[in-house]
Formats: sequence, structure tokens, C-alpha cells
Amino acid sequence: MTAEERLAALGLSLPAVATPVGSYVPALVVDTMVWTSGQLPIVEGHLLATGLVGERKDEVSPKVAAECARVAALNALAAIASVCGGLDRIDTIVRVVGYVASSSGFTAQPAVVNSASDLLVAVFGEKGRHTRAAVGVASLPLGAPVEIEIQATILPNH
Amino acid sequence: MTAEERLAALGLSLPAVATPVGSYVPALVVDTMVWTSGQLPIVEGHLLATGLVGERKDEVSPKVAAECARVAALNALAAIASVCGGLDRIDTIVRVVGYVASSSGFTAQPAVVNSASDLLVAVFGEKGRHTRAAVGVASLPLGAPVEIEIQATILPNH
Amino acid sequence: MTAEERLAALGLSLPAVATPVGSYVPALVVDTMVWTSGQLPIVEGHLLATGLVGERKDEVSPKVAAECARVAALNALAAIASVCGGLDRIDTIVRVVGYVASSSGFTAQPAVVNSASDLLVAVFGEKGRHTRAAVGVASLPLGAPVEIEIQATILPNH
Repeated sequence: MTAEERLAALGLSLPAVATPVGSYVPALVVDTMVWTSGQLPIVEGHLLATGLVGERKDEVSPKVAAECARVAALNALAAIASVCGGLDRIDTIVRVVGYVASSSGFTAQPAVVNSASDLLVAVFGEKGRHTRAAVGVASLPLGAPVEIEIQATILPNH
Repeated sequence: MTAEERLAALGLSLPAVATPVGSYVPALVVDTMVWTSGQLPIVEGHLLATGLVGERKDEVSPKVAAECARVAALNALAAIASVCGGLDRIDTIVRVVGYVASSSGFTAQPAVVNSASDLLVAVFGEKGRHTRAAVGVASLPLGAPVEIEIQATILPNH
Repeated sequence: MTAEERLAALGLSLPAVATPVGSYVPALVVDTMVWTSGQLPIVEGHLLATGLVGERKDEVSPKVAAECARVAALNALAAIASVCGGLDRIDTIVRVVGYVASSSGFTAQPAVVNSASDLLVAVFGEKGRHTRAAVGVASLPLGAPVEIEIQATILPNH
């Protein structure tokens, strides 16, 4: 199965790429490497949740944050696909940075970012196993609980 | 116009490159990619402002923070120019990371980092449109409100 | 002296590489560049310290945090060595990101991350002088005080 077929088998499809609000682009190809901008958990123009991630009732739960990470990763894949001619042009996922807006004392960033990592392996198999940094930050643009960046290699043109 | 001419037309010039305080370097070339260290908003040896960025009167205002981002980006360009033979050797701006030391609840990091992004597009035109991550962090070295990293490609030697 | 000999001369050796808890890998080679996942200050399965770095008695001291940065850098070198055939295959250290889980008002992240940078120069000499970002974050996985990522080039196969 191709990456696009695996994505479809998961019941997922690539969303439209959000237009950046500023002098930057969603993704960029340099030689055989593609870089994305930090992607937020936006679905049809709206953030899935806002606030800091933590265990308190008034905070974004780790479970909701994990869903945010998955959605942000899907947005990053859409950004990559838009600049390199589709998901099947991706060779290897090289690196993921997962920023988690973390409430005081919240240290389960890996569990949150795992849902982004798991999606990548589900779609790309062994070629989806990437290096990763998961970090707890003070706050993120628009109050997003999670921001995900992906760096990948693409197949050479032939 | 060349990048150096565009910079001059903006009334700007490249500052001297600050000597890093440690076993690292301001910028490094690997093949055709150049990477900078995180750059602070330092002008003639002094930070333009210190503290967390926020809306309260005792915090660094988003407007001052935006000016800090622009100055830090200019310092990053100076670092790049110093290792690759001048600004006109830059081909494409690939990636900008903007760390904003953010007060609780401050989520307008994109507006702050936009002034760095806008400078890059003003100087490099379409080749200045980069990928970007804007993140709100707890604190930055020396109390700086903003830290900017730039990654760019340089033209091959000929 | 080779890098492995210099490491031994410092009384250090590469630890075993920790198995990532998730769908990611400790390090990955792409062409002649190697990237690591964010590495924590883990020694024999245990974090050297936990908590935020600061000057208060109940916080992780800058001195302990510096030791954490050194240990995390050593873990990053072990991760690199494990995927490229040993430390002596490393050519240049390109970039270090040092995330420091910072207590309110702590701004001496550079002093903490210097101990990682110093280790790299002690082991690789001039080729160990890298670009660097040091950032104060809200919290890190498992409560680690420091997380270190390293990016390096490796020598071409011959």
C-alpha cells in the first residue's frame, strides 16, 4: 500500500493547507529535504482546543492534547504534500518537534506527541520512524495546546 | 537590487557579530546550508529590552518584542554573512525559529515573529519566504524577550 | 587522538542507548547528516535530577543542571555512534539545541548548556564548535531539567 492508501485505510484524508498569517510558507523543499512550519491543531479554520495541557479539570486533558498532536501532524503532512506533489513523494520522516503548552508540573509531553509519531508510522511504516524532541513550552500561537513541525526527505525526481 | 542594496534601502546595515560566550559559533556552513545560533536582540552589546512579553504594563509590550525580533533577525543575518562571504551569497531563507519569552496567557507570538519574517522578505524577496515556528517559552538567556534562529541555503561557489 | 580516545582520556565512555518509548528512534542518518532525538540526562535508566532549574533551594541548581546537560550530550553522542558506526565516524558537530526547564526568572541557560558544548569541543576539537540555541522551557519529559539535541555530519563512506 502507498502512503496515500494507508492514510485512506485509517479513515483520514489530507485537509486543505491553511494560509500562513505572515511572510512565511507552510512548507519548503530544499534539494531532497522538505521542512514544514510549526503546525497547529486546526480543523476547518478552528483550533480543536485552546489552553495549557495538564491534569486539572480546567486544563486541556492529555487525551485531547494527543488528538491535537495527531491533527497538527496531519496538517503538517498536508503542507508537505502541497509542495512536493503528494504524500507518496515522501521517502523518510526525519524529525518531529512537538511543542506542548504545558501547565505547571505537566511532564507527560511524550504521551501527547506519541499520537503524532504513531500516525507517521501508521502511514509510512518503517520509513516513518523519525527522531523527535518533545518539549513543554509556556504558550503557543492562538492558545493552541500543541504545535508540530515535521522534516522529511522526498524521493528524487525521475 | 541585491540583498545588500535592499538592506541599505531600508536604512539598515549589518551589525558586528557578537562573540559567543561559550564553545560555540555564531553560524556554520555545511555544504550549501548555513545554520545560525540562536540570536538575541542585542544592539552594541546591550539587550534592547529584558523580561517576559505580555500585555501588562510591567511586561515587554508586543510592539517592543516585535522590534526585538527584527533586531535579532538582523544579528542572525550578520552571523550568516560573516561565515559565507556576505549577504549576497544567500540563496534562500529556509527556516526561522522564533522563541518568545511569554508571560502567562500571551499567545500572540506570531505577531512578534512576523517582524523578523517581514524583514527577511523585504531583503530577499520571494527567496526570503521561509518555514517558521513561533513558540512561547518560559525564559531566554540574559532575560531576552526574543531569540531568533535562521537557516538558509547559500549559492554554490563558482 | 581520535574522538574515542579523547573521550576515554576524559574518563568517559559511551553509555548504552536508551530505547525510545514511542514510534521514534534515538538517531537517524540522512546522507551525511545525523540527527538525534532530544536526549535526557538519564544514567542507567534513571534521571540524574528532576524539576525546574533555578536559584532556590528546592530547585535544581545551575551546577546540577550543567552536569545534566553534559550527561544528556553524552547520551546524544551514544545515539549518534549507534547509527553511524562509532564516534570516530563523526566529522563536524553542526548544531546543539539545549532546552532548560526553567524556574520563573532563571535566565542563565547558556551557563547550563555550556557544559554540553564544552564536552563536544573536548572530544572533537575545532570540529566540535557548533551553532547552538539555549532556551528556557516550562517543563520537559519525565520532569527532566535539561534536554539536548545534537545534529552532526558524518564522514563519507570509503
